[in-house]
Amino acid sequence: MASLLPPAERAAIFADLPGWHDCEGRDAIAKSFVFADFAQAFAFMTRVALAAERMNHHPEWRNTYNRVEITLATHDAGGVTAFDLRLARDIEAAAGGA
Amino acid sequence: MASLLPPAERAAIFADLPGWHDCEGRDAIAKSFVFADFAQAFAFMTRVALAAERMNHHPEWRNTYNRVEITLATHDAGGVTAFDLRLARDIEAAAGGA
Repeated sequence: MASLLPPAERAAIFADLPGWHDCEGRDAIAKSFVFADFAQAFAFMTRVALAAERMNHHPEWRNTYNRVEITLATHDAGGVTAFDLRLARDIEAAAGGA
Repeated sequence: MASLLPPAERAAIFADLPGWHDCEGRDAIAKSFVFADFAQAFAFMTRVALAAERMNHHPEWRNTYNRVEITLATHDAGGVTAFDLRLARDIEAAAGGA
């Protein structure tokens, strides 16, 4: 089972990954992405889905038209682990800086 | 602009489309779908995304692993219209009875 991230690594998440923030009321990280339209938002979601499936670690996410809100946590560990950090980096790559 | 569905057609939504229900606190309809795993859930989402894009009417939805929760409303009309009924039917077809 993955361990919760130590404080120093947790702090590094936000240094490395602009726009990500802690979720209020639970141990999780989140970011909202906005695209030009639904097609671009869903193309992004497809890239994220493939990355998530490859690492067998999946996001909680919601989409409304051009907006995608993503929350990451590791269910088994009860909080944020290295898996979430890795997936957040893959998500940034999938967004191409969006 | 689409008109809000008259009461008789609104009632027919739930007769035709099992599992769909009114949303509390807003004029919208919703249903949750559960699949075997993330890959099957996202395959369903991809079918829905293509149907939505084809009719230029998009869902509000969230996904966590094998679960997809979909809410339909027509933003411009401020409630449920024939577009939502049509998209709900396409979603049922995409789910294949899931």
